[in-house]
Amino acid sequence: MANNYNNNNVRIDPATGLRIINFSAGPGLMPVSVLAEAGQSMASFSQGHGLMELSHRGKAFEAVLAETEADFRQLLAIPDGYSVLFMQGGATLQFSTVALNLVGADADAKCDYIVTGAWSAKAAEEAERLLGKGRVNVVVSTKKSKHNGDVPALDQWKFSQKQAYVFYCDNETVHGVEFGNKFPFDAIPSNVPLICDMSSNILSGPIDVSKYGLIFAGAQKNMGPAGVTVVIIRDDLLSPSRKCATQPIPQLLDYNTYSTSQSMYNTPPTFPIYMCGLVFKWLKTEIGGLDQMSAINTAKSSALYNAIDGSNGFYVCPVNKAYRSRMNVCFLVNPKSPDAAALEKRFLAEAEAKGMVQLAGHRSVGGVRASLYNAMTLENVQILIAFMKEFQARV
Amino acid sequence: MANNYNNNNVRIDPATGLRIINFSAGPGLMPVSVLAEAGQSMASFSQGHGLMELSHRGKAFEAVLAETEADFRQLLAIPDGYSVLFMQGGATLQFSTVALNLVGADADAKCDYIVTGAWSAKAAEEAERLLGKGRVNVVVSTKKSKHNGDVPALDQWKFSQKQAYVFYCDNETVHGVEFGNKFPFDAIPSNVPLICDMSSNILSGPIDVSKYGLIFAGAQKNMGPAGVTVVIIRDDLLSPSRKCATQPIPQLLDYNTYSTSQSMYNTPPTFPIYMCGLVFKWLKTEIGGLDQMSAINTAKSSALYNAIDGSNGFYVCPVNKAYRSRMNVCFLVNPKSPDAAALEKRFLAEAEAKGMVQLAGHRSVGGVRASLYNAMTLENVQILIAFMKEFQARV
Repeated sequence: MANNYNNNNVRIDPATGLRIINFSAGPGLMPVSVLAEAGQSMASFSQGHGLMELSHRGKAFEAVLAETEADFRQLLAIPDGYSVLFMQGGATLQFSTVALNLVGADADAKCDYIVTGAWSAKAAEEAERLLGKGRVNVVVSTKKSKHNGDVPALDQWKFSQKQAYVFYCDNETVHGVEFGNKFPFDAIPSNVPLICDMSSNILSGPIDVSKYGLIFAGAQKNMGPAGVTVVIIRDDLLSPSRKCATQPIPQLLDYNTYSTSQSMYNTPPTFPIYMCGLVFKWLKTEIGGLDQMSAINTAKSSALYNAIDGSNGFYVCPVNKAYRSRMNVCFLVNPKSPDAAALEKRFLAEAEAKGMVQLAGHRSVGGVRASLYNAMTLENVQILIAFMKEFQARV
Repeated sequence: MANNYNNNNVRIDPATGLRIINFSAGPGLMPVSVLAEAGQSMASFSQGHGLMELSHRGKAFEAVLAETEADFRQLLAIPDGYSVLFMQGGATLQFSTVALNLVGADADAKCDYIVTGAWSAKAAEEAERLLGKGRVNVVVSTKKSKHNGDVPALDQWKFSQKQAYVFYCDNETVHGVEFGNKFPFDAIPSNVPLICDMSSNILSGPIDVSKYGLIFAGAQKNMGPAGVTVVIIRDDLLSPSRKCATQPIPQLLDYNTYSTSQSMYNTPPTFPIYMCGLVFKWLKTEIGGLDQMSAINTAKSSALYNAIDGSNGFYVCPVNKAYRSRMNVCFLVNPKSPDAAALEKRFLAEAEAKGMVQLAGHRSVGGVRASLYNAMTLENVQILIAFMKEFQARV
């Protein structure tokens, strides 16, 4: 199993013969075995037809949908009393959807946002734009420290007196900041729904779904192709009393539309859902489940962070060690050097010439970012580390 | 070219050896050559990676997006001054989006809906739910005649005095009713935007885009897989003055969000967009453009309607001849017979046993429905006609 996993993501550029390692922050790498199976079923999945040519109301796709949901529930050990919805629009549309569906009728209750990076900041902005300033409270923000993971101590967090919900983003893809099990779950009263954007770390390891009211994730990091968004919602949050009382919710932004129709109110994105199903099977059978996936992810990110921290300051990760992401490892190349900008450029160009692509940090922050989603192998991370050492020794 | 097209959609069920003809109303049939190319690029499109693994901000996908839009513009001869947007959520989400983006600030202006089937009825309902009863006017409705295409004469249409826009659905998939060039374009004042849902007949033939303010279409009939929605919008309709003044628009439901970001505000559904691009190439090169496509579509639907009308009442199409759809041919099996229900069931079962699948009408109306989207060949329609004649002679 482990050997198979270690070797199945070797990619050769047919044009150059170069081995390519794709560190894209998303859409991200997918397992080779998943792509091979999907390629075959493209033209022939059922009765000589490809998956994407089949009616969503036919038996073949209904079976795919049911199995995809069942595997997802099994992987995350989702308890009874939660619904799984397949939506569209990515995490960004969920920023609007969460606000409209969960602000509730009580005009005194506020939506509490924990801001630790670009995505939670955007979520809070969109909620404020839709609901009005008075309804949104930023509990804590790391904006002043450029979202470097210096999360203030809990006694400095300013929760609202009356909370509609508490929102956070578990892994901030742009800044490389991750809560994981360090999130202060005990600070959230049990009657307040905890809402989490897990777009970039879902399925990277086990979580306790029962701590959440709602979890959402765009597929294109750890699950499948762009075009499907998976939502896990505790059923009591589907109550009309949770919804915005001041404006109607567009039908396809209402979670109830999906929960009452098994995500089939209108045509769902059938092929992206099918691809997620293949990835779930890969996690179950080739990886062996989320405990194993988590161990692999820790091994990958630890190896890279150790290389950065052991470089005598040549490579610097600006993120507080307590909140460093396992998925997106951000670092700078010799930032104290007067030639830092040129060095970073050279690092990225030389890495690319060796086949290590998509290593540039998000355009809003710069630097280097290696995204190590589930399909990235430890072997490929070690190739990056070897290059980093060789580059440091040479320049 | 024509021979190639006639022969390239032969599908054999590998399990039974049976030739399968898929009349699904959507997601629909796709050209075999498109699926073959997509299957290959699944695992290797650029640098040894599949299309869906590539960053949407990388050069490879940006080139796909640009070429897809350019081919679409060329096929439909879209004039300057119109933007093409790639969205998500299907036509159903557009029912909400159109209302919120185009109702305008003038509280006296009404949104005029022309209702000729299930989809335009849903669009009007959603606009009314979002905007309030006072803002929506049903100009004309064929509901009383069960949406059978008995469209009243134009002098009975009740347009509003002050119109925010006029909405219609060009092809009603459930009822098999199509306007096409019979739509009374001259009845729409030039300063009133004409909005059209073309989900199930876009690219079935040439249209004059300049007559429209906005056209939208879910991809899964004539363009590609479910998961992408294409919008053509005249740029003046992007003005803030057109938008709903009484409630904020969720960011990803605002057309401006897409027009100012080349549909890349957040991650677009990259693979579904790529598939549309392959279908556009197929239309250009294998079919030869929309004039040729239109001729093929007329040949297919005419052959089937002629068979129905020439059956001495054994097969009956309930749709007014003037508004029969080229895409979705609905008919009943010997409806005057006391055994009509049993006969229809037998017809569908025997057709399926011969490999002609997905012929049952929409669950809300029953009957038989043969969807003849662009990828359906004349040869396959003739196989259905031959079966219909044989069935009639035998029972």
